Amino acid sequence: MSALEELRAALGGIVDTNAGSLESARADRSGHAAAGHPIAVVHAETVEHVQQTMRIATATRTPVVVRGAGTGLAGAANAGAGEVVLSTLRMTAVREIRPDDLLAVVEPGILNADLNDILREHGLWWAPDPASRAISTVGGNIATGAGGLLCAKYGVVRDAVLGVDLVLADGRLLRLGHRSVKGVTGLDLTSLVIGSEGTLGVVVGATLKLRRLVVGTTCTITASFPGVGAAAAASAAVTAAGIQPAIMELMDAASLAAVHAFLALPAPPEGAAQLTIQTDGPAAVVEAEAIAQILRGLGGQTALSDDPEAGERLLAIRRSMHPAMATLGTTLIEDVSVPRSAMPAMFDEIARIEQAYGMSIPTVAHAGDGNLHPNFIFQGAEAPAHVWAAADELFRAAIALGGTLTGEHGIGTLKQRWLADELGEDQWELQRRITRAFDPLGILNPGKVFPVDA
Amino acid sequence: MSALEELRAALGGIVDTNAGSLESARADRSGHAAAGHPIAVVHAETVEHVQQTMRIATATRTPVVVRGAGTGLAGAANAGAGEVVLSTLRMTAVREIRPDDLLAVVEPGILNADLNDILREHGLWWAPDPASRAISTVGGNIATGAGGLLCAKYGVVRDAVLGVDLVLADGRLLRLGHRSVKGVTGLDLTSLVIGSEGTLGVVVGATLKLRRLVVGTTCTITASFPGVGAAAAASAAVTAAGIQPAIMELMDAASLAAVHAFLALPAPPEGAAQLTIQTDGPAAVVEAEAIAQILRGLGGQTALSDDPEAGERLLAIRRSMHPAMATLGTTLIEDVSVPRSAMPAMFDEIARIEQAYGMSIPTVAHAGDGNLHPNFIFQGAEAPAHVWAAADELFRAAIALGGTLTGEHGIGTLKQRWLADELGEDQWELQRRITRAFDPLGILNPGKVFPVDA
Repeated sequence: MSALEELRAALGGIVDTNAGSLESARADRSGHAAAGHPIAVVHAETVEHVQQTMRIATATRTPVVVRGAGTGLAGAANAGAGEVVLSTLRMTAVREIRPDDLLAVVEPGILNADLNDILREHGLWWAPDPASRAISTVGGNIATGAGGLLCAKYGVVRDAVLGVDLVLADGRLLRLGHRSVKGVTGLDLTSLVIGSEGTLGVVVGATLKLRRLVVGTTCTITASFPGVGAAAAASAAVTAAGIQPAIMELMDAASLAAVHAFLALPAPPEGAAQLTIQTDGPAAVVEAEAIAQILRGLGGQTALSDDPEAGERLLAIRRSMHPAMATLGTTLIEDVSVPRSAMPAMFDEIARIEQAYGMSIPTVAHAGDGNLHPNFIFQGAEAPAHVWAAADELFRAAIALGGTLTGEHGIGTLKQRWLADELGEDQWELQRRITRAFDPLGILNPGKVFPVDA
Repeated sequence: MSALEELRAALGGIVDTNAGSLESARADRSGHAAAGHPIAVVHAETVEHVQQTMRIATATRTPVVVRGAGTGLAGAANAGAGEVVLSTLRMTAVREIRPDDLLAVVEPGILNADLNDILREHGLWWAPDPASRAISTVGGNIATGAGGLLCAKYGVVRDAVLGVDLVLADGRLLRLGHRSVKGVTGLDLTSLVIGSEGTLGVVVGATLKLRRLVVGTTCTITASFPGVGAAAAASAAVTAAGIQPAIMELMDAASLAAVHAFLALPAPPEGAAQLTIQTDGPAAVVEAEAIAQILRGLGGQTALSDDPEAGERLLAIRRSMHPAMATLGTTLIEDVSVPRSAMPAMFDEIARIEQAYGMSIPTVAHAGDGNLHPNFIFQGAEAPAHVWAAADELFRAAIALGGTLTGEHGIGTLKQRWLADELGEDQWELQRRITRAFDPLGILNPGKVFPVDA
C-alpha cells in the first residue's frame, strides 16, 4: 500500500486530500510556498493519531511536515510534493492548570491568545507574546522559539516551558523535562526541542511555566524623534539608565508613515521616528516618569498615559505594522537581532543598504531587546534577486555586529544559506548529527533548517 | 609515546603529577572518590592548552575529566585510574563587562563570588547563587546547571547564560549561542551543554546574562512553626497568595537543632521548624508585611527586619547547614525537587522513610521552588547499603510526586542507577546517542551520568 492508503486505512476521516487543504498547506505567512502539493493533511486529534501517522511515515519513508496555524515567517511549515502534513490544529485541550505550581499542561494546537483568555480567569498568564498571538498556536510558538514584545522583561518561549511530550519519527512518545521549578536530570532536551522547527519530533503536549497577572497600573509613553538614529539612541539610554520597561517598540519613519496612512491618521512629521514604551508592576508610574524625562532630555516629544485603553490605542499603531505593509505589496519580514548597544549601528547599516540598493526598508524594532524587523516590499509571489542581495548584506551586517540571523522567526527554508555563516561549519555539522540522532531516516521536515541530504 | 609523555612534551610545566594533586582530584564534596589515581592534572591557562590536551587525548584515546573547584555533590568531577584531569581553575579572566548589553564574557575558572564582587562595582550581578558560590566556579555552575537560593524569583543557570565556547573531544573550538537577548538560529546547543556534567565538551568561555543590582530595601522574615508540616504548608500559602519572595528557605527540626548547636545558639523549641524569607525590590516592605501576616495566621511566630546586617545574620543560620552536618559525620546531601504543591507530601514521605529505616534525615528546602536537600549522615567514607536503600525510596517518592531526582546537583556517578527510572528507556538511549554525536570515542568524562560502554 502507498503511504496515503495506509494512512486512510489506519486513520479514516482525519486524512484530508481536499485540494484547498493541500494548497493552503504549501505556504505560511512568509508568502513563500513549497514546490508541488503535499499528499495529504492528517488532522490529528489525539496523541495516538500522531503516533500512528509517524509509524506509517517511518514504515513508508514518507517525509512529514508538522504544522500548526501556518503563521510562520520562515517557510518552516510549508509542505510540498511527496510530503504528508501532520496538523495539530485540532489538539486544543488545556489538560491542567495549577495556580499553586504556576504551570499548565496544554495540547499544541491551542492558540496563544485563547490559552491566555483561559488563564486570565485564574489570575495567570503565559508570557510569550509574539505579534501573531491571536492567530498562532502554542505548538508553533515552541517550534520556532517565539519571542514578542515583552521579552526583555518577561522572557521568550525558552524561558516559559518546563517540559514537552515529543513523538519521535518512529512513533515512540517521550516525556521531556519536568514539572518542578528546578531539574537537571540528564541533558536538557526540552530546550533542544524549542526552536527546532519540526526537525526533531512532534510536540504533542507542553508543560508551560506561568506567571501571575501583573497587578497595578500600566503606563504608556510615546515619544517622537526627528529621526530613527535619535530614537534608537534614546531607547539605548533608557536601558542604560537601568530601567526595564515591559514593552519598548521603535518604528522608523517609513513604518510610521505607512501605518498612519493605513489607519487614516494624520501624517506624522516628515522623517519622524517613534518609541512606544510601557511600564508595569509596582513601580510603573515612577519608571514611566523617569523614562519620559530621559526621552525629553534627548529631544523626544513625549506623551504619557496611565489609562489602559489609551495605552492599547497607542500600541495599536505598532500592532498595525503587518497589515499596513501588506497593502504595499508582498513583504519579506526580516528578523535580525543584535546586542542592544549595537542597535544604532544596525540602523546605520540599514540606511546604507537602502542607499546602495535604492530601496526603502521600513523597519520596526523590539528596542528593549535589540530585535529588528526590516521589511522588504516587492510585487509578485517570490522575492526578486536584488531583495535577497540586500537581505544578504543585512544578515552579514547583523552577524558582524555580534548579532544573529534570526531573533524569533527561525531558519525554515528562507535563511538556510546563511546558517553556516553564523554557526561555523563545525557547529553546523554537529547540529546536523544531532538531528540524525532523533530522526535517523531524515523524514522530519526535510529541507528545513538544513538542506536535504546534507 | 604515552599520553602522559605527549602531554609533557606539548604542555611542559602545567602537567602536574604531584601525588597530592592526583589524590585531591579523586573526590569532590560528595565525599565519594574514584577508584585509583588519575595520570596527571593539566592546569590549563589558555584555550589553546585545552585544545592541545583534547587533541592528545583523542589521539591516545585517553579519558578526560574536566574539573573546576571540585565542589560538586554528585561525583561528576572525580577522576580515577587511567584518566587525565583537565583543570580550568587557572582560567579566571573576565574578558568583557557590558553594562549596556547586560552581559559579561568570562573564563570558566573564576569563582562565582569573585565574579560577583567584580560585577558589583558596575552595578551588576549574575543571579545564580548556589550555596557553594564562595568556592565554586562559573564553569562548574554551568556544567551542573546549578541553582541556589534565589531561583524562584531570579532563575537558575540555564536562565543566565547566553552562550558558551566549547572545546570538543577532538580539540576543535565551537562558539555556541549568541550575545543578543533573542536568538533562534539553529538548535540551542548552549542549553544542551548547561548541566551536561563534562560529557559533551570543555567549556572554555561563557557569555553570561546579567541583571542590574536590585535597588531598595531587603526585608527578612523568620517564622518558627511547631513542626515541618506546618512550615511547609505556610510556605505553600505564601506562593499561593501570589507573592514572590527572593528567598524562602525551610529548615526542619533536626537541621535547625544541629545548626543552633553548631553556632552555639540557644536550642530551638523541641520539634520546631523554621522559614527564613527575604523580599526585595520596590515592593519589598509591602510584600514582607503581607507574608508575615500569612505566616502568623497559620500559627507562625514571626520576626521581621529591614536591616541588611540583621538579615544576613538570620540567613547565616541556613547557610551554616553544611558545616553543621559535617560535624555529625559523613553526609550524603540529596537534592530532590518536586512541584511546590507537593512539598508537604514530600516531607511526609521523608518522615515515613525515617521511621522505616530508623534514621534521622535532617532536611532543608528551597521552599519557594520545591527543591529539598535531605541529608543522610553516616560514619566512614562510603554510604552504607541501608543509606542507599533509604535514598532509593526517597528518589522514587519524588518521581511519583511529579518531581525529579536532582534539582541542581546533577547525576554524576552517584545517581546513575536511577536516571532511566526518570527519563524512561527510550529517552535515556536518545540522550546517550546525543552524547556520542559530540564525543564519538567516549573519552569525555566516561562513567559519569551514563555508565561506560552503555
